[in-house]
Amino acid sequence: MNITDALKRQRIETPSWAYANSGTRFKVFPQEGVPRDPYEKIDDAAQVHKYTGIAPTVALHIPWDRVEDYADLAAYAGERGVALGAVNSNVFQDNDYKLGSVTNPDAGVRRKATDHLLECVDIMDRTGSRDLKLWFSDGTNYPGQDDIRTRQDRLAAALREVYDRLGDDQRMLLEYKLFEPAFYTTDVPDWGTAYAHCLELGPKAQVVIDTGHHAPGTNIEFIVAFLLRAGKLGAFDFNSRFYADDDLMVGAADPFQLFRIMYEIVRGDALRPEAGIAFMLDQCHNIEAKIPAIIRSVLNVQEATAKALLVDRDALRAAQDSGDVLSANAVLMDAYNTDVRPMLADLRTELGLDPDPVAAYHRSGYFDRIRTERVGGEQAGWGA
Amino acid sequence: MNITDALKRQRIETPSWAYANSGTRFKVFPQEGVPRDPYEKIDDAAQVHKYTGIAPTVALHIPWDRVEDYADLAAYAGERGVALGAVNSNVFQDNDYKLGSVTNPDAGVRRKATDHLLECVDIMDRTGSRDLKLWFSDGTNYPGQDDIRTRQDRLAAALREVYDRLGDDQRMLLEYKLFEPAFYTTDVPDWGTAYAHCLELGPKAQVVIDTGHHAPGTNIEFIVAFLLRAGKLGAFDFNSRFYADDDLMVGAADPFQLFRIMYEIVRGDALRPEAGIAFMLDQCHNIEAKIPAIIRSVLNVQEATAKALLVDRDALRAAQDSGDVLSANAVLMDAYNTDVRPMLADLRTELGLDPDPVAAYHRSGYFDRIRTERVGGEQAGWGA
Amino acid sequence: MNITDALKRQRIETPSWAYANSGTRFKVFPQEGVPRDPYEKIDDAAQVHKYTGIAPTVALHIPWDRVEDYADLAAYAGERGVALGAVNSNVFQDNDYKLGSVTNPDAGVRRKATDHLLECVDIMDRTGSRDLKLWFSDGTNYPGQDDIRTRQDRLAAALREVYDRLGDDQRMLLEYKLFEPAFYTTDVPDWGTAYAHCLELGPKAQVVIDTGHHAPGTNIEFIVAFLLRAGKLGAFDFNSRFYADDDLMVGAADPFQLFRIMYEIVRGDALRPEAGIAFMLDQCHNIEAKIPAIIRSVLNVQEATAKALLVDRDALRAAQDSGDVLSANAVLMDAYNTDVRPMLADLRTELGLDPDPVAAYHRSGYFDRIRTERVGGEQAGWGA
Amino acid sequence: MNITDALKRQRIETPSWAYANSGTRFKVFPQEGVPRDPYEKIDDAAQVHKYTGIAPTVALHIPWDRVEDYADLAAYAGERGVALGAVNSNVFQDNDYKLGSVTNPDAGVRRKATDHLLECVDIMDRTGSRDLKLWFSDGTNYPGQDDIRTRQDRLAAALREVYDRLGDDQRMLLEYKLFEPAFYTTDVPDWGTAYAHCLELGPKAQVVIDTGHHAPGTNIEFIVAFLLRAGKLGAFDFNSRFYADDDLMVGAADPFQLFRIMYEIVRGDALRPEAGIAFMLDQCHNIEAKIPAIIRSVLNVQEATAKALLVDRDALRAAQDSGDVLSANAVLMDAYNTDVRPMLADLRTELGLDPDPVAAYHRSGYFDRIRTERVGGEQAGWGA
Repeated sequence: MNITDALKRQRIETPSWAYANSGTRFKVFPQEGVPRDPYEKIDDAAQVHKYTGIAPTVALHIPWDRVEDYADLAAYAGERGVALGAVNSNVFQDNDYKLGSVTNPDAGVRRKATDHLLECVDIMDRTGSRDLKLWFSDGTNYPGQDDIRTRQDRLAAALREVYDRLGDDQRMLLEYKLFEPAFYTTDVPDWGTAYAHCLELGPKAQVVIDTGHHAPGTNIEFIVAFLLRAGKLGAFDFNSRFYADDDLMVGAADPFQLFRIMYEIVRGDALRPEAGIAFMLDQCHNIEAKIPAIIRSVLNVQEATAKALLVDRDALRAAQDSGDVLSANAVLMDAYNTDVRPMLADLRTELGLDPDPVAAYHRSGYFDRIRTERVGGEQAGWGA
Repeated sequence: MNITDALKRQRIETPSWAYANSGTRFKVFPQEGVPRDPYEKIDDAAQVHKYTGIAPTVALHIPWDRVEDYADLAAYAGERGVALGAVNSNVFQDNDYKLGSVTNPDAGVRRKATDHLLECVDIMDRTGSRDLKLWFSDGTNYPGQDDIRTRQDRLAAALREVYDRLGDDQRMLLEYKLFEPAFYTTDVPDWGTAYAHCLELGPKAQVVIDTGHHAPGTNIEFIVAFLLRAGKLGAFDFNSRFYADDDLMVGAADPFQLFRIMYEIVRGDALRPEAGIAFMLDQCHNIEAKIPAIIRSVLNVQEATAKALLVDRDALRAAQDSGDVLSANAVLMDAYNTDVRPMLADLRTELGLDPDPVAAYHRSGYFDRIRTERVGGEQAGWGA
Repeated sequence: MNITDALKRQRIETPSWAYANSGTRFKVFPQEGVPRDPYEKIDDAAQVHKYTGIAPTVALHIPWDRVEDYADLAAYAGERGVALGAVNSNVFQDNDYKLGSVTNPDAGVRRKATDHLLECVDIMDRTGSRDLKLWFSDGTNYPGQDDIRTRQDRLAAALREVYDRLGDDQRMLLEYKLFEPAFYTTDVPDWGTAYAHCLELGPKAQVVIDTGHHAPGTNIEFIVAFLLRAGKLGAFDFNSRFYADDDLMVGAADPFQLFRIMYEIVRGDALRPEAGIAFMLDQCHNIEAKIPAIIRSVLNVQEATAKALLVDRDALRAAQDSGDVLSANAVLMDAYNTDVRPMLADLRTELGLDPDPVAAYHRSGYFDRIRTERVGGEQAGWGA
Repeated sequence: MNITDALKRQRIETPSWAYANSGTRFKVFPQEGVPRDPYEKIDDAAQVHKYTGIAPTVALHIPWDRVEDYADLAAYAGERGVALGAVNSNVFQDNDYKLGSVTNPDAGVRRKATDHLLECVDIMDRTGSRDLKLWFSDGTNYPGQDDIRTRQDRLAAALREVYDRLGDDQRMLLEYKLFEPAFYTTDVPDWGTAYAHCLELGPKAQVVIDTGHHAPGTNIEFIVAFLLRAGKLGAFDFNSRFYADDDLMVGAADPFQLFRIMYEIVRGDALRPEAGIAFMLDQCHNIEAKIPAIIRSVLNVQEATAKALLVDRDALRAAQDSGDVLSANAVLMDAYNTDVRPMLADLRTELGLDPDPVAAYHRSGYFDRIRTERVGGEQAGWGA
């Protein structure tokens, strides 16, 4: 397939919660025009798709996006040109989860948490979502606080129960994270742990790579390549970071890293939708305007992808096979150093989109409308 | 001075906010019996001093501990056997501070922030506090967001204004932090920055070392030794961490590191109160009971200090001077490996304290009382 | 089993190369009395066992320890009270390996490297060694230099060939390392990669944890617990580090971490020799005297083990199950804070050893003898 | 000044030792055609300048580049179109320096080390070099090994003696490094330490930033901005790293970081030669061909500089001042995303250079010549 066709078929999912307020433990700064319910989040997500053309689905977060009637929500989305995507469970914000959810020492809490995961599958049945994304904040803060190994047993049991509940076309995507909110152990701290559990569970369990969830110095594209080779890469949560899980706009901190990741995707023939990798954003726009930040993020992934597609793979392989370190590196860098923005502007024009999505959004008057209309009510955030 | 005398004179300040609720950006788990105002925080701090005997002062945080009448608060503290300590400013929780406080691009916001700092000195006049502790969350999240160097100019101007307002017996303690809540640049990210500003300001400006505010791999005891040599170490914010600014109980993550830090203090003759180093805790007890966690923390510092005092410094110097690497290390480790708990239990008994402070606190019934009495009202936390 | 019995049965293997010179890329500082051949290394290792009583085997490194007659070397060791242990392959010091060994783009180099591994199994047949320890320096320095995924295919093929060559009682131990000497990708960078390959290979393939081979912030005891649960932990390479792969004496940088690791070993019932975990040292004594440093290291592991055995596991479980964070932590810390040196001195006396191994070694005059005798010839080092 | 003029005046110094063999502690892989003496290194450096046009000076390393007659060496360089640059001292490769050089516990060793530094100033007098670059490997490997603070006293004394020996037009450039080869403390571990010493010494002492010498997560451009503001930035040692001090080609690991660094240089008006910042490379080409790698590195700095010069600073300031986070970031990214290679090719053509320096070098036949001629003798490396 040529580069243009590949780019036309690229799909990136935006997360409902990124349209809502977020912050750090020190402060959540509210913004004007922030959605107050899942319907308004979908309105915003539709804007991102309208201008980028490649963000047609929205991930939900339960309970933040709990509604009476999911079919109605899905229909609402459809009318706005988008669809509901992955369902994200949340077992970290109830007071009961202070010492963990599915790995809590208390069996009653574990039951409650597992029931929530099962409820999420029920919701998937109604929304038609393919993917259940699982992130567990479970862990401990102090050495000795709980038994590391017993917690793995509890985790395995809960995952098995939920896995067995999945429908034929549903998947479980297991995310890992080094630390935060737990500060000593995390029950799924790294890709190896997620991989081992997914392998034991079966083919419907796949690993999620959140680009901000690694120890300093971790080579993320290696993990991408390894999991693709093993057939166990299910999804990305894209964002970027300078330090920990900063959740900045993807590509903002290290655009070269994003390019290397997307190169492994292209090299593994995993860009096309049929490959089954869900490319999602998972970001917090704490201080910047949310909708344009998400548009920017989608474009950043698209630009990195375009550069990855530009790599002359025959020349690369020839240089690699001959052991010519500098030439091989030069082939890769040649693609990276290319300014792909004119090509992408042309692509958008061809698709009937504005060549400059951010500018088009700003011109549209949408923000003036929502800042005016969305007054009163409670702004959505991580806690609502 | 002998070890016992040195330990008797040791002083550790506990922070009012550690008695209140805290958490991560994901969730603040409320606890029973948490104080609802500064007076109740002082009640709790008095408990810590009652059982440890070495925690006679409480640091305040403005505006969290704003009261009508500071003289009344000081008197209340005095009646409970403790005194008010350092005043901590807070220029990170107002909506205006989204892009910074004293380094904000908006001059009006800078004025407001500086005025808050000056107000803190006014409060110090009333509480009799010696130390104004400054931590700035100021920084940027994205490259280009603001000009790094101009922000230093703004910072220097605000610090100068506040410095000039200090009374003869007052000090400014400047804290540094690598990251969080800012994720790209932080305006005072490391000890070098704090040191440079303090040097320029003058003798009343000193550096604060928060043990959780460094990049991975940073040798904190080196900084302690260096700042002591330069006469610029003003205070510690003690806590511990495995990853980032985890704010766990001091000594919980790496007790050997705490010992090495306290050894530099002993070696630099900086333990005695006249040396002017303020030894403070700054911790978050997100999931553990707060008062016993703070007692535990005070004891951890005390135990590390006792071990540091046990180092045979003559033997150490002899081994160092002869280049005997293993023997020098062995002298240090011999002290570290000593179980100092019996010695400290004896010390407490001698001082009329219970030899086991945590057990004594639990036996006292204090917690049952506060969990019963402190119902209704709003629990104190970082936001209140 | 009681604590004393468990400690009597503990076994730690020392590495032949630690008795030789080592250094950094900046400089190798030679020391007096360093062995000049494998026989002299065994002499030194026998000293370590003589004084500690728990270091009865010596790991070999091929080609550094290549000899004409391995049966003779084994007999020589036996006469000195020690035995030959694991065989460590070396596919990183030949000029051919500049771009990798078993993952090299050149098939001829891959063949040569794999043949070396097979030769190591031949040697194992002769020495009676159970374990083949594999560490690959393979990786790349620059993005694009080689294909990450293809290198995994090459790695898998080589491992399979060697695995199939193993005898019934032989094992393959696969080590991972984050970086160094490769600076962009490493072909086995983390435990997940080693685990995945071992799982695919079969039950004779097991993972090696080198305590210095992780990204900053990695929780090593979690990996220990996880691999024990999965039945895939084969061995340790013990050492310690403040920054990267510093290869300092185990327990020197973070004795509390070593204790937590040994606690997971005890908790997983993996201390006893029948559990099949090989506890090895892998250290570089660049500036300190080598034999006493190795004695010190063996003692450090022993002390950490004794503390781990002292943990009151019933009390710990009770506190964990009741969600009492502080009490659970206190149970663990109580063991850690205990000074186990008197108990271990008694144990040695009971076993007919000197209670102070380092002092006994120094008194023995062994070092004076080797510094006098071992003149001329070429000192052993990493390159010889 | 316009962009083209600024680029024409840019100057980058290459290090003599980068043309020689280097490696890791595991292996130094020799390459064909490597120089065998300082004269041949200058021949190679002249090639880099010949094709890039902006690398007219070569840094020396004493004793690696010790010659009988420095005037002759300078004349030789001049005939080849280059000049001798900074003198780099080396107090880390003599056996006496095992426990340090100027901070060694032994006064005799300190004297020897200081004398070497003074000798380097003598050499500067003869070569006409302006800059003495000081990097100390001094530090300790184990807690307690030596006294942290006393070592600072020794360091200060040696620096003072050397500083006082400097001529009117000579400078001392003090480099810092987090770790390696020392693994516990390093005597000049961070910019703060170097800055504090330089401040005390006086205006002829300036700080060197080696881009590979920081803790993970350190924001290097912040340090650049801070030191420029303080008038204390003297030089760069450019290279790049993924993990520790990897010494890869500058810009290879994180080209965006290099751009941000160069932006602070441009913003601080420090690019022009009169600003007195020495822009040097300090790299190890362990596995790639050395001369083209150095050409590539010079071009990488040039490309990053061109992008930095392209930043629309008026637009940036306007966005910053109005608090428009996304627009300010977009202004910066717009410059970074521009492909400056065509502009630089034009610039070279204008200057009479080949538009593609790497290709021109390869076509020249120089490498074939040196691989043929430079046989026999001993290849230069870090040890010779």
